[in-house]
Amino acid sequence: MLITMNRQECHALDSDDALASLREQFELPQGVIYLDGNSLGPLPRATPGRVQEVLRQEWGKGLIRSWNSAGWITLPQRVGDKIAALIGAGPGEVMVADSTSVNLYKALGAALALQAKAAPGAAPDAAPGRRVIVSERCNFPTDLYIAESLARERGLTLCCVEAHDIPAQLNEHCAVLMLTHVNYSSGRMHDMAELTRLAHQSGVLTVWDLAHSAGAVPLQLHAAKADFAVGCGYKYLNGGPGAPAFIWAHPRHTARMDAGQLWQPLSGWFGHAAPFEFSPNYRPAAGSARFLCGTPPVVSMAALECGVDTLLAAEAHGGMAALRAKSLALTELFIGLVEQRCAGHGLTLATPRDATLRGSQVNFAREEGAYAIIQALIARGVIGDFRAPDILRFGFAPLYVRFVDVWDAVEQLQQVLESGEWRDERFHRRAVVT
Amino acid sequence: MLITMNRQECHALDSDDALASLREQFELPQGVIYLDGNSLGPLPRATPGRVQEVLRQEWGKGLIRSWNSAGWITLPQRVGDKIAALIGAGPGEVMVADSTSVNLYKALGAALALQAKAAPGAAPDAAPGRRVIVSERCNFPTDLYIAESLARERGLTLCCVEAHDIPAQLNEHCAVLMLTHVNYSSGRMHDMAELTRLAHQSGVLTVWDLAHSAGAVPLQLHAAKADFAVGCGYKYLNGGPGAPAFIWAHPRHTARMDAGQLWQPLSGWFGHAAPFEFSPNYRPAAGSARFLCGTPPVVSMAALECGVDTLLAAEAHGGMAALRAKSLALTELFIGLVEQRCAGHGLTLATPRDATLRGSQVNFAREEGAYAIIQALIARGVIGDFRAPDILRFGFAPLYVRFVDVWDAVEQLQQVLESGEWRDERFHRRAVVT
Repeated sequence: MLITMNRQECHALDSDDALASLREQFELPQGVIYLDGNSLGPLPRATPGRVQEVLRQEWGKGLIRSWNSAGWITLPQRVGDKIAALIGAGPGEVMVADSTSVNLYKALGAALALQAKAAPGAAPDAAPGRRVIVSERCNFPTDLYIAESLARERGLTLCCVEAHDIPAQLNEHCAVLMLTHVNYSSGRMHDMAELTRLAHQSGVLTVWDLAHSAGAVPLQLHAAKADFAVGCGYKYLNGGPGAPAFIWAHPRHTARMDAGQLWQPLSGWFGHAAPFEFSPNYRPAAGSARFLCGTPPVVSMAALECGVDTLLAAEAHGGMAALRAKSLALTELFIGLVEQRCAGHGLTLATPRDATLRGSQVNFAREEGAYAIIQALIARGVIGDFRAPDILRFGFAPLYVRFVDVWDAVEQLQQVLESGEWRDERFHRRAVVT
Repeated sequence: MLITMNRQECHALDSDDALASLREQFELPQGVIYLDGNSLGPLPRATPGRVQEVLRQEWGKGLIRSWNSAGWITLPQRVGDKIAALIGAGPGEVMVADSTSVNLYKALGAALALQAKAAPGAAPDAAPGRRVIVSERCNFPTDLYIAESLARERGLTLCCVEAHDIPAQLNEHCAVLMLTHVNYSSGRMHDMAELTRLAHQSGVLTVWDLAHSAGAVPLQLHAAKADFAVGCGYKYLNGGPGAPAFIWAHPRHTARMDAGQLWQPLSGWFGHAAPFEFSPNYRPAAGSARFLCGTPPVVSMAALECGVDTLLAAEAHGGMAALRAKSLALTELFIGLVEQRCAGHGLTLATPRDATLRGSQVNFAREEGAYAIIQALIARGVIGDFRAPDILRFGFAPLYVRFVDVWDAVEQLQQVLESGEWRDERFHRRAVVT
């Protein structure tokens, strides 16, 4: 069906799209088709005004008083609760804090601490034998680097395998399975509930990185019985460049940490049970608040709240389930059109064709020129990105990407490939950030 | 001399103050005397415009391209270099990143890694015996919490003593001396060069928290031969609530870390030698860049840069030395006026009278009602703060506090004490953040 589609039919799909009006929430520059929201979400229209209010009123006029009067102190949980609604977590369970990398260190550190201390009622020697962190070889590098660091510090082993070999690694030696739910490069999505079930069967805890999932695909952390999760504020949550990240722990684990007086390693004062008592001894706050560390970044959290609100606005139109349906329609249309119109140009689909395994992005691999083709596309106003060594990556955020954008993007890609313009030297100069 | 001073003479001091015009850099609310810049610096006039530019132009229009085209990727070092100029460090040595607490974890972790690995040429058994982190009992709690966490993880001892007992602890068992240069509560300043000299005599490394020093007192990290330092962006650097912090390491240590392939524990992708190669194995960047971890917070860093610029603007008027001279004149005036005009009201100076030991703040202790008195003062527009259990704390940031502000603040304090209005019940209700 797709291969007979024309631009007019894409327009018709947009006209029928119940989510179409959500695009109005964003400041999108003229002449740009933005297919990189998986790397940096666009600017919500509400953000500049809200940030100005925080700067001029709350900071400028309220000064230090605004920690109380403007509710700054509650921001990590308030914005966390909004994110919780998108990922199937409960109120009070998600905290906005730090970066994804730093939060991963906390979550992994906490999971390892739980495993090192036998659970109440468990055989007392159940845990000490668990010396392995299992992950996936193609996981996002920062996840592997953080796990590698914790493994070195604690004398553990980080074991990275291919996706199909993961179940075999979930055994009595494994302490934690750490995975990114949707892979940054392939766009492949793991079955969180099934892998968690397998992990728990063997006494393994799971730590999930939701960087490419939160705000992109429906998530049910409680239903999946997940253990810990972290995620990114600046991709599908539209929080702005370098926005704060989030962290979640299942309440059964924070309860065990409460009972066992277990710490996460980054025991800063905002995770203390009573920070303004200025006690010289650390006593972790109950629940997820223990995952806070330093003084929370107020201006960035306010911007992130505006970004999260753009997703909550979809609630009236079916929420994440409706966004997912549109996302799949967009990615299937893109795959179909590229394979039809760019056939013979050496592009190979590098994202699962099976919709149940696909996140909200589509990648094509090309042996030669992937970087330059992306640069040539950007010069034509179609923004995707390149991921080493040979991936053209395109994100389809259903909040603001239209069906006609998919058509136009493929049109430009076809022209770039047919003209050979990407061979021009200027498209081959590598920038620092790709 | 001070005790004969009147308000007119304070005005005269302001008229003669070569730094007076620097106050124009800030948006200070009408009717407020702000003596809490040691907790949260005020809003620079330049900040809202610059943040709007980052939001609307760089993020909104530039989108992902701005990592290269707007120089976002260079912000941690660019703002770091500006801070370096304030603290006696060299270009490329300071990175803006994360929070003070998180940076302390990195710096302390790096110092411990260096001590655990004998220095090239040193006796190979020099380090393993060093199992103690020494600090001060009254250090800011988050510093102690972070050190306590690292000590627990690595089987070390955190030994907290009184200031006068520090030298006796600098021996062959001590790995690191971790101190806050100017104490958050007492305002007492350590002699960084002398304590570092004593530490090095015994093979001890020093980690300095500059939270109440950077932008407040002259600092010469190189001249003092300090080893590591961290500091806060939202106090005297005026970066905004929860602004990013900074971290510094002496190049002799980053060179040793380079040579010995030593990591700091938070080995995130932005501290990788080549983050956009997406290698699965961590390889730390050379120099201080290894202290970066997650994706840098662009909007917050831009705001911090505006704050740091307010201090660099003093360069034309004598820089940190001139600011220090004014700061001491302000704090001495405040001490003298309070002791004269509020005599008999139970206030005891809790800050060193000796100017060489004093930071840029003045504290008074009062057995009863310290919290309520601060609240009554705030109701009158004089903003200081309370620190448990009995401290009234007043910060004197010489960039924007005037001599006449000191006069007026003491006038209000005298009235609060003489009227007894602070006994009113409403001033005793504790807010979450004090």
